[in-house]
Amino acid sequence: MSTIVRNTGTDKVKIEDIIKAIKPVDAGYYAKAQARLDNLTKPKGSLGRLEEIAMRIVAISGNLKPLIKRKVIFTMAGDHGVCEEGVSAYPQEVTPQMVYNFLKGGAGINVLARHVGAEVIVVDMGVKEKVSAAGAKNFKDKKINFGTNNFAKGQAMSIEEVRKSLLGGIEVFEEAHSERAIDIAGVGDMGIGNTTSSSAIVAAITGEDVALVTGRGTGIDDASYLHKIEVIRKALSLHNPDPKDPIDVLSKVGGFEIAGIAGVILAAASKRIPVVVDGFIASCGALIAFELCNDVKDYLFFAHQSVEAGQLAILRRINQRPLLNLDMRLGEGTGAALAIGIVEAAVKILNEMATFSEADVSEES
Amino acid sequence: MSTIVRNTGTDKVKIEDIIKAIKPVDAGYYAKAQARLDNLTKPKGSLGRLEEIAMRIVAISGNLKPLIKRKVIFTMAGDHGVCEEGVSAYPQEVTPQMVYNFLKGGAGINVLARHVGAEVIVVDMGVKEKVSAAGAKNFKDKKINFGTNNFAKGQAMSIEEVRKSLLGGIEVFEEAHSERAIDIAGVGDMGIGNTTSSSAIVAAITGEDVALVTGRGTGIDDASYLHKIEVIRKALSLHNPDPKDPIDVLSKVGGFEIAGIAGVILAAASKRIPVVVDGFIASCGALIAFELCNDVKDYLFFAHQSVEAGQLAILRRINQRPLLNLDMRLGEGTGAALAIGIVEAAVKILNEMATFSEADVSEES
Repeated sequence: MSTIVRNTGTDKVKIEDIIKAIKPVDAGYYAKAQARLDNLTKPKGSLGRLEEIAMRIVAISGNLKPLIKRKVIFTMAGDHGVCEEGVSAYPQEVTPQMVYNFLKGGAGINVLARHVGAEVIVVDMGVKEKVSAAGAKNFKDKKINFGTNNFAKGQAMSIEEVRKSLLGGIEVFEEAHSERAIDIAGVGDMGIGNTTSSSAIVAAITGEDVALVTGRGTGIDDASYLHKIEVIRKALSLHNPDPKDPIDVLSKVGGFEIAGIAGVILAAASKRIPVVVDGFIASCGALIAFELCNDVKDYLFFAHQSVEAGQLAILRRINQRPLLNLDMRLGEGTGAALAIGIVEAAVKILNEMATFSEADVSEES
Repeated sequence: MSTIVRNTGTDKVKIEDIIKAIKPVDAGYYAKAQARLDNLTKPKGSLGRLEEIAMRIVAISGNLKPLIKRKVIFTMAGDHGVCEEGVSAYPQEVTPQMVYNFLKGGAGINVLARHVGAEVIVVDMGVKEKVSAAGAKNFKDKKINFGTNNFAKGQAMSIEEVRKSLLGGIEVFEEAHSERAIDIAGVGDMGIGNTTSSSAIVAAITGEDVALVTGRGTGIDDASYLHKIEVIRKALSLHNPDPKDPIDVLSKVGGFEIAGIAGVILAAASKRIPVVVDGFIASCGALIAFELCNDVKDYLFFAHQSVEAGQLAILRRINQRPLLNLDMRLGEGTGAALAIGIVEAAVKILNEMATFSEADVSEES
């Protein structure tokens, strides 16, 4: 039984309510969507995964001609105490620097989000420094703490902080959605050191060997890579997280932004909004959401296959195949942005293509 | 020595001139583009294939900040006499019906081209019926003949028709480019029966076994599939095309639209314009262009891995990895449209991302 259920208080009630509101999609819509797709002027099934995407968007929205208007990518930022162990190629100050870069529109995620017509909402879930972005329209302050604790030495965060992080993600989605309805969400991350936390989470939950789910993050050398694996192994034997309790796992080796991503996903799924999950870190957030509520799966599209090996263990567990494979490993939501463009294309096929009878085209003999 | 060189006349001169004008890209630009990419606010190489694409566009254009404004997809249509042998699931009348669908904007290619802001130019290279589209701005009449001959019984076309088809493709590109400069081209196909012709071409040129390069096209059943393989095998032993002479191969088992696609590619490469190659049929056109002039390779982006197995033999021969893998097999240029969106994203990264110094972000330690 998850720690959520073991705890009481308002936070718990809110998170529990969100989880209870998540329902599987109505599978009856798949057949209806398939019938419409098969009536369009193309050989049956010839648009491959675009058809699969279109069918799922129909089932999620309960609408045979769904529209994608507002597209929002949530880029969740947080810092990691485990950086003290020398697990990243970049100094920790890069996290706030990149947050400012996001707010000025100069980062990879800004460029790719603009390309697909998506907004970027930048969320401080737990950056180590104070972020001075008051007044920035696309900034949300949900800071839980100034970075996690070094999980090589103690727990990354308290159980209460895990709940607050999940709630922070839920609130960020709900606030944005209440301003103007979101039709599709993306989730991405920023946080120096967060591949170390993610690999630890994946190893803890899936039971995979640490070396198999650990990569080189932003690009560390061989010695640092072996050290990173060792740091994770020791932390897992120090904390012995319960693989069946994602809240326990997060408190021991998690990150504020990873829990926040899980919160965004839970909130979106509860409102029947599809979520495009970026690379490794975002997939790790999706894994947490999935462990809390398997039904979120119906609402998730995995954007791309990350270079980080740990993502494969997540994809296997949730039984999903990502849409793109462009050897990307930047994070921020960059892969999610590109994949949102593909999902939108799939929906337009459904809405804009002529049927055989409309176009006076002969059907299969 | 290719048949082009063996023949004389104006056509030959024109085609030869185009081929002579194709030069490899200046590889010096790769290092310059890499230096700029490495200065942008992201870990080195973390945008994976987007960076590879950006570097090649820089090398093709000779411009460190290339712009992609005009995007044009050429959808080349032609009919195939070999349909008499019962190799397709659809009747031949679908070719002109789909041409009209393209012109009315209701086909898959129209939807996906609009999605990425590309124009579609529809070219009648050899549709069996007369196409009445006079006045349609995006239609080009380059009809060589009313469909090819049934290559199970005789040559698909004459050597002169092959040359005219290549020229037709060249002219279509040059006409559109002279109206307003094209920054990126896409090539796609329409032609009932053209997977049969393409598989025959690939088997003839690469020497691969027919069964390994033949697929189910628009979706034929097992018996028709085995029959299709048999038709191709018999045609190849009847005609014995010279694997070193793509003109000979085209005349024996080719298609007007496949030769036309090769022509568009040759013309684009001669003007240093990148070309995004759609699925199996378009890749077959690219193979012809490559066999005529290996240097076209520098200008080609293979859009997606087709469900048709024959494309793999082409990709192996040209040593290219496609950008997308969405299980698509529609043709028309649909995969090229989606990939043009990815190429444009890569170019925007180069143009719009902030550098470390601009954004005041610390570099790798």
